[in-house]
Amino acid sequence: MALWGGIEAGGTKFVCAVGTGPDDIRHEIRYPTGSPDETLATAVEFFKLRGPADAVGIASFGPIDPNPASSAYGHITTTPKEGWANVDFVGAVQSALDVPVGFDTDVNAAALGEWKWGAAQGLDTFLYLTVGTGIGGGGLANGKPMRGLLHPEMGHIALPRDPSVDPFEGVCPYHGDCLEGLASGPAIQARWGTPVEELLDEHPAWELEAHYLGAALASFICVLSPQRIVLGGGVMKHAPLIRAVRKETRARLNGYIQSPAILEEMERYIAAPALGDRSGVLGAIALAQGAAS
Amino acid sequence: MALWGGIEAGGTKFVCAVGTGPDDIRHEIRYPTGSPDETLATAVEFFKLRGPADAVGIASFGPIDPNPASSAYGHITTTPKEGWANVDFVGAVQSALDVPVGFDTDVNAAALGEWKWGAAQGLDTFLYLTVGTGIGGGGLANGKPMRGLLHPEMGHIALPRDPSVDPFEGVCPYHGDCLEGLASGPAIQARWGTPVEELLDEHPAWELEAHYLGAALASFICVLSPQRIVLGGGVMKHAPLIRAVRKETRARLNGYIQSPAILEEMERYIAAPALGDRSGVLGAIALAQGAAS
Repeated sequence: MALWGGIEAGGTKFVCAVGTGPDDIRHEIRYPTGSPDETLATAVEFFKLRGPADAVGIASFGPIDPNPASSAYGHITTTPKEGWANVDFVGAVQSALDVPVGFDTDVNAAALGEWKWGAAQGLDTFLYLTVGTGIGGGGLANGKPMRGLLHPEMGHIALPRDPSVDPFEGVCPYHGDCLEGLASGPAIQARWGTPVEELLDEHPAWELEAHYLGAALASFICVLSPQRIVLGGGVMKHAPLIRAVRKETRARLNGYIQSPAILEEMERYIAAPALGDRSGVLGAIALAQGAAS
Repeated sequence: MALWGGIEAGGTKFVCAVGTGPDDIRHEIRYPTGSPDETLATAVEFFKLRGPADAVGIASFGPIDPNPASSAYGHITTTPKEGWANVDFVGAVQSALDVPVGFDTDVNAAALGEWKWGAAQGLDTFLYLTVGTGIGGGGLANGKPMRGLLHPEMGHIALPRDPSVDPFEGVCPYHGDCLEGLASGPAIQARWGTPVEELLDEHPAWELEAHYLGAALASFICVLSPQRIVLGGGVMKHAPLIRAVRKETRARLNGYIQSPAILEEMERYIAAPALGDRSGVLGAIALAQGAAS
């Protein structure tokens, strides 16, 4: 039976695993992201020691070039993360391990994991959104990973902000008060002076967070018409938040989208990831499986 | 050689045509949208007289149910337009003419027309946006018409609005100052008291219109990563507007999306429809062709 390798490549940590699915992860390591050379060498060594994997999937932080027809395919492209711009991620892994390599954004991969084993099974157009250090979205559109010119950058949509309610101007270096600028973990910490994990349940931060996420989700629904939205990431670990986001999303749509999924089944429509923290690395394993077939 | 029929069904007028493509429209009629019975009878009579068409495509105003697996497939669903809610559009045409019938939103059909014969040839993920009496978006995602839970309703995304610059609260009965509420033809007329077609080139309406459309397009780019955006509809007939929209879209993205298409080739990236006013009815003919195959 084939064995798959998965790399979840984040800006702060890497997770590598070998296995065949959620109930069969044979080995796993987690380590901080360092320079590209040493970080990729650790991954390669892990797969040599713990494999051999028949194929490896990479779920990468971005921006990346996921277009196989492009000369920069397989690269991380313009990231501000030191040393990582223009790194040929796929090339490095492929030449070291000599197996097929699958490659996509961390969020498209997480979506794929949820599609294969989690909260998005059977759907062909859905959204996976992660709300954490950054805000990113991916998913499937018409049964395939969302791509196009490059890949979605959903954290950077513009949102209404009423300065009399929220004078905070946002932390995005490009757009100030875009979604990520207003509602990512660092934005919450900068606005309130408290790290997200220390905010109490009754802190007004949560109501404002739900307000912005609800406005964003309503816009994503208008643009993509997803069959479901899976909401992951560190900020969503605050359990009451998803309920408040459902309410705000529905309030914002105001009955315009006449679908039972939105009008009656919001609990299922906006869902937590069934794979929890493991959507990403399991998605990478799903990418490996796809690359081998 | 096969002959195709197309119906472009708008809230104010219907266009029916038979032909095989942009250079071969054999017959065409345009008439105001009345009650469903008389309006569809006129279409059916036209195809009986001027056909027979081997298949008919319907490019319809919405919301519609475009999902062939649904019990309401082929219906216009919840429109406020009197008499038209829950009309079985496909059923009526199919039973009267006994040919295959294709069915999609007016904007998905227009996108299909532009893909087949116009400004979106060769692309598999792109956006067609119409700015007129309403604002609607469609297109292809991964090579197929954009669908999902229902179909996109892109005119209803939320946008930032600074009341000190634009105190106008919008005309959307559901959302007030969503994109359609702020930037559709009726919104422009309500804000300035002048119909769009009478606004002079130097009127401040155009700068504000470009501002909102640019913000919307930047968000669409972040969500969909389209390979191109085709901008049609009555409001876009004001020739200088598209140039201003390109500028505002680029300003809003602020260099974040590092693609030559956006950074260097904006003239091509945000394009006028190559089929002009005929994207819709030609798209309907393309739908007919698809339904027959």
